[in-house]
Amino acid sequence: MLQKKILLNESEMPTHWYNIVADMPNKPLPPLHPGTKKPVGPEDLAPIFPMDLILQEVSTERYIEIPEPVREIYKIWRPTPMMRAYALEKFLDTPAKIYYKYEGTSPSGSHKPNTAVPQAYYNKKAGVRKLTTETGAGQWGTALSFACSQFGLDCEVYMVRVSYDQKPYRKIMMNTFGAEVYASPSNRTQAGRNILEKDPHSTGSLGIAISEAIERAVGDEHTKYSLGSVLNHVLMHQTIIGQECLKQLEYTGDYPDIVIAPLGGGSNFAGISFPFLRKNLTEGKPTRFIAVEPASCPKLTKGVFKYDFGDTAGYTPLLPMYTLGHNFKPASIHAGGLRYHGASVLCSQLLKDGLIEANALQQLECFEAGVVFARTEGIIPAPEATHGIAQVIREAKKAKEEGSAKTILFNLCGHGFVDMQAYADYFEGKLHDHFFTDEELSANLPEIEALQPTVA
Amino acid sequence: MLQKKILLNESEMPTHWYNIVADMPNKPLPPLHPGTKKPVGPEDLAPIFPMDLILQEVSTERYIEIPEPVREIYKIWRPTPMMRAYALEKFLDTPAKIYYKYEGTSPSGSHKPNTAVPQAYYNKKAGVRKLTTETGAGQWGTALSFACSQFGLDCEVYMVRVSYDQKPYRKIMMNTFGAEVYASPSNRTQAGRNILEKDPHSTGSLGIAISEAIERAVGDEHTKYSLGSVLNHVLMHQTIIGQECLKQLEYTGDYPDIVIAPLGGGSNFAGISFPFLRKNLTEGKPTRFIAVEPASCPKLTKGVFKYDFGDTAGYTPLLPMYTLGHNFKPASIHAGGLRYHGASVLCSQLLKDGLIEANALQQLECFEAGVVFARTEGIIPAPEATHGIAQVIREAKKAKEEGSAKTILFNLCGHGFVDMQAYADYFEGKLHDHFFTDEELSANLPEIEALQPTVA
Repeated sequence: MLQKKILLNESEMPTHWYNIVADMPNKPLPPLHPGTKKPVGPEDLAPIFPMDLILQEVSTERYIEIPEPVREIYKIWRPTPMMRAYALEKFLDTPAKIYYKYEGTSPSGSHKPNTAVPQAYYNKKAGVRKLTTETGAGQWGTALSFACSQFGLDCEVYMVRVSYDQKPYRKIMMNTFGAEVYASPSNRTQAGRNILEKDPHSTGSLGIAISEAIERAVGDEHTKYSLGSVLNHVLMHQTIIGQECLKQLEYTGDYPDIVIAPLGGGSNFAGISFPFLRKNLTEGKPTRFIAVEPASCPKLTKGVFKYDFGDTAGYTPLLPMYTLGHNFKPASIHAGGLRYHGASVLCSQLLKDGLIEANALQQLECFEAGVVFARTEGIIPAPEATHGIAQVIREAKKAKEEGSAKTILFNLCGHGFVDMQAYADYFEGKLHDHFFTDEELSANLPEIEALQPTVA
Repeated sequence: MLQKKILLNESEMPTHWYNIVADMPNKPLPPLHPGTKKPVGPEDLAPIFPMDLILQEVSTERYIEIPEPVREIYKIWRPTPMMRAYALEKFLDTPAKIYYKYEGTSPSGSHKPNTAVPQAYYNKKAGVRKLTTETGAGQWGTALSFACSQFGLDCEVYMVRVSYDQKPYRKIMMNTFGAEVYASPSNRTQAGRNILEKDPHSTGSLGIAISEAIERAVGDEHTKYSLGSVLNHVLMHQTIIGQECLKQLEYTGDYPDIVIAPLGGGSNFAGISFPFLRKNLTEGKPTRFIAVEPASCPKLTKGVFKYDFGDTAGYTPLLPMYTLGHNFKPASIHAGGLRYHGASVLCSQLLKDGLIEANALQQLECFEAGVVFARTEGIIPAPEATHGIAQVIREAKKAKEEGSAKTILFNLCGHGFVDMQAYADYFEGKLHDHFFTDEELSANLPEIEALQPTVA
């Protein structure tokens, strides 16, 4: 019988995260203080993050050990399976070999707990009592709620109002793990009150929710803030995905020609890509890496590489990234995890340097791919994950045209059990593709150039 | 580091189901034809089941090989992990060792696909084009929809009206796998129309939905019917759960003193118990087996062991089982999968013979246990599964009182991602325990005695 699932035992779980900064030809530019426009130092970040995470954020070490208590909790769902998509290959009649890593078996149903657990751990170790965070579709908030419950930390989640109203189940999942959840914008913060004053019916945004969560952390010495993507340390925590895949592919004898993942902030994409990109950078492997973004928020393909805020109120440092501007309003789509105006500093620098590629897809093609995947591979993918699948199908069809037995690997970052309304809307013809005009795309672009600093 | 997860490779997946009939001291009584009250033969079942499944239903062979195409599809999620509940043990401060088998990683999120896949396979092999079935909470309908999509079969699901209205996501999951879903009672069958005539606002029941699905199958030569629990062949398909656990426990050196699972129709309980019960019957092992039912539908603890119909309209053969009567109306609880008036013939006979035990639990204790489990082990259990967890907690506390390091194994039959409304109602204080009067419990009891037949 053919082997479908490649499993690793707990004893084979990677003991280290991979930090791509060590191998990048151009190192990431430093974050800037919004007031002084000078690089921020660790002490600037201390009010919102514990020092262990700040040190990881600026580390240039190639490998950082995963603490044993984190690995103990990872074992609830890790190592995750890697699967060969035989049924999808057959359906597409492609000579390509398609593999997918499946992160949907985690407590929250996506890859997000990979970073939530270490973030909760390092905060607990630093004596923090409560974490605040934002959540859009709810995946990240659920992951952090779970992680906090494991370490006995309180957890306060600011959930984008539109999702709070549309996805009550996600809120209840967070409650079940013991977290408090507030619709954002809320009256609990100045940032929220400012928005509500201008627009009492604001449906919120990820940028606003980030501002609220940060404000709450800054105002309380026992509280810190936690971010689910974008930052260097978050992306690094996710590399356990690719580290596992490297081992799993060794058992198959295959090596990927193409690695594909959706990109919202960048942690899912980084998680599966960076360990393989290391092999490009250090061993000359020729693997292609394709980040897939939604056409409703096309920062990689239509944004600019400049310094911009990570949030709406401008509380975060300025980050050098591909961005549509922190006031850009993405079109409304169900893949809420991909509706973020910027891309992580690391992914942005790698894209600028031509080491990864990006493509923007419309949502109808993605949902069609999701349904094909459910009816072949048997797993209903999260709307975010369908973006990766749609790109995989494109590449598999191309491989068929070329008669080339390419090996394609993608990250199935989560299941769709809590996102079925999206599929309902798709089946009922309520979803549409969205085409921005050039004016709309350029209306909010930031202006601070991100240049490699001259040597002081 | 402690080993939490015990995994099996695909090559270790059991190749045979276990048929407990071979080892039962008292064989199950035969189903009776409702008209003649004589035992039904295979030919009586031929209009609704394919011959391969009928032969399994009456088989006395100890092991039946799992066909290779079925094992190929099982590999999407099987073998499933068995976990040691270290965090729960610690929380309870118990000397007991607690293990759980986790079936929530399947395409539908529960154990149901274990039988849906072989049922679809044998029907496809027999040239059937469409399967009909009923579903209550939606787990079984989703599982069969998935299985039909794998074999290119059409699938028509009758979903109990109250769930159809309350759980739209479950319907959409079935649609995503390609199935048609109708609220039951419907106007598509005589059984449904009869009910609607008396009560146009009927919220339906599992018994009514079964009647509708059977009627549709009987009326079309290319259509057969599929049942998700109760029948012998269904229980046998689920024994892959316990067969895997036997191997997994070998790796730990432990053997269960107690095996626990919820019981709705009996397939979840049978799946994990029967392979261990074999060791009691053939090797003199002293393991206890506890079937946990909801106090809202207490057929095992308050019902009678008599012949009764499996459905409301009386289309099925009469089955010898513990039952509250096929017109019994269970109290409304969120664990929809446990709201069935009778227990499978095999479980009923084993209970009558004192080889297994039963206990009825109220839902508040179960939801409390579910929240404890989420906050310790990190997995939000389905409402049905919380019944097993509550019993585990009782046994673990007893072990603590006795100072006894018992080994407890239970089946975590599914996750709660699609059942969060139940937790919301629990947190909001909307759920209550339910106490039936003796009159209510005895109002619908059937009258046909289930006696061992005299030799002809």
